[in-house]
Amino acid sequence: MNQSTGNLPKSVTVQSPASVANLVCGFDVLGMSLSNPYDLMKVERTDATGITIRHTDEYQLPTAPEQNVAGAALLALLHEYARPAGFDITITKCIKPGSGLGSSAASAAGMVVAANHLLGAPFGKEDLVRFAMAGEKVASGVKHADNIAPCIYGGITLIRSIFPLDIVTLPAPRLFVVAVHPQIEVKTSDARQILRKEVLLKDAIKQWGNIAGLVAGLLKNDYSLIGRSLEDVIIEPVRSMLIPGFAEVKKGSKEAGALGGGISGSGPSIFMLCEQEGIAHEVEKVMQEVFNQIGIAYHTHVTTVNPTGVTIVDG
Amino acid sequence: MNQSTGNLPKSVTVQSPASVANLVCGFDVLGMSLSNPYDLMKVERTDATGITIRHTDEYQLPTAPEQNVAGAALLALLHEYARPAGFDITITKCIKPGSGLGSSAASAAGMVVAANHLLGAPFGKEDLVRFAMAGEKVASGVKHADNIAPCIYGGITLIRSIFPLDIVTLPAPRLFVVAVHPQIEVKTSDARQILRKEVLLKDAIKQWGNIAGLVAGLLKNDYSLIGRSLEDVIIEPVRSMLIPGFAEVKKGSKEAGALGGGISGSGPSIFMLCEQEGIAHEVEKVMQEVFNQIGIAYHTHVTTVNPTGVTIVDG
Repeated sequence: MNQSTGNLPKSVTVQSPASVANLVCGFDVLGMSLSNPYDLMKVERTDATGITIRHTDEYQLPTAPEQNVAGAALLALLHEYARPAGFDITITKCIKPGSGLGSSAASAAGMVVAANHLLGAPFGKEDLVRFAMAGEKVASGVKHADNIAPCIYGGITLIRSIFPLDIVTLPAPRLFVVAVHPQIEVKTSDARQILRKEVLLKDAIKQWGNIAGLVAGLLKNDYSLIGRSLEDVIIEPVRSMLIPGFAEVKKGSKEAGALGGGISGSGPSIFMLCEQEGIAHEVEKVMQEVFNQIGIAYHTHVTTVNPTGVTIVDG
Repeated sequence: MNQSTGNLPKSVTVQSPASVANLVCGFDVLGMSLSNPYDLMKVERTDATGITIRHTDEYQLPTAPEQNVAGAALLALLHEYARPAGFDITITKCIKPGSGLGSSAASAAGMVVAANHLLGAPFGKEDLVRFAMAGEKVASGVKHADNIAPCIYGGITLIRSIFPLDIVTLPAPRLFVVAVHPQIEVKTSDARQILRKEVLLKDAIKQWGNIAGLVAGLLKNDYSLIGRSLEDVIIEPVRSMLIPGFAEVKKGSKEAGALGGGISGSGPSIFMLCEQEGIAHEVEKVMQEVFNQIGIAYHTHVTTVNPTGVTIVDG
């Protein structure tokens, strides 16, 4: 047995939350952790070395550690830990892969938080984000942190810079989040390919005016400013074409009182922010009606911004 | 005599401050009011209608109201006021036209604040910004508000949107500002023409990460984050070529402890933000040494962010 882990817990269960990346005007830099849905991950430290991954869900994700999002994140952590350690991992995913609600980030972030706990917390949050980004690379081919960071830090986060990594937590007033996941497939790689490599300077100026307004609105607890700033003139006009019902959901949600919203990550989920819970339930109805009418199956979630991110529930 | 102005002051003197537009990563949307330098404007309400403009400085600016920045702003105000009124205006400019320190904005903003005061404050701050923008149009052909808004509101402001006008005040910690105005000419119109109409999406993402970081740094009183966010990957690489000594000033200022800085407005002035006054004076020395060595005449200013904007000093 490894001496330094002798008095540490052998087993931990974590809740690892869904997240919304981009937040309309914050493409590639903003992300928000949700209270629901979340994955459950049970992680046991073994006396041997080696990683075993087991899924108790229907998604048939790979279990070889280097091909698995959680496994790749754990390998990145263990590479830096540089001492022998072994883990048995049981994952129950409730965030559907491909939903645009940060399913892969939840696996990666939950894994490194759990492993760090079982090893006596040798690593800080920024380290954990770095390790989890190795998991995102397995999922999408890109080491991005806009879902990972809110999962690890909780709340709303800004990735001011990815190289070097610079994560900024953004305090925010209470916000209700409504998300709808229409059961269609939008691959992150496709959603990225349809974007133009160049954008008009005048559009970029609008976008950075809006992200500045959104950050100011969050930090000043100014709901109206948050709402006015939730506008994306660059990404949404292109990507929303991949999501049937998008325009109707957005228009109807705002008429029902939502502050605003847009595509969650690279879609197909759509999210809306609301000041009040009652409005959030009205917005959920709008979303249901739109997809009932189109005839596409869907799931909806009415939830809040999750202030803590990955949570240890047992251990 | 106009009944409604019977009990109002007949004369007022205002200080109208210099300002820094763009603030590095906030091209066209951010602006900051300075405590120094400032113009002095004495405005008298006459019993007749008509506008008389007199300058007590060396700049030979036009005095016909519709060709004069202050005059055009006043005409815009009077158009909406829609009652007869006349003004005698004496302007002493201390902010050099063409410096990039918001000289035209100071004239326009000072004028409308003074006139509003003499008319019993019929207009709010956002109205005054709109009127003053008509003055900016005379100066540069463009109705921009990134210098006007901080002159009217004080402090640091965000123009989230210009149509419709959406001005956001940004609380900030104490900041010292050092500015150097090398005595060379950079026309706003030239500085605008050399910009590309399209930018790389990846550069735009860096820019909106930085403006989000800057706004968060200001509102969280996080000097280090402010410094890290003062980076411009789009405008500065192009425009700084018009300013001899720019790279040396920036490098030397940061080595002397400045948080960061860049081109003020469209130049040629360069500004740096500092946490401490002592560092600000060191940064001033750096600027002086650079332009002494190049052999270009210059003025430097060591000042602070002006929390109030245009100030009534008499009346």
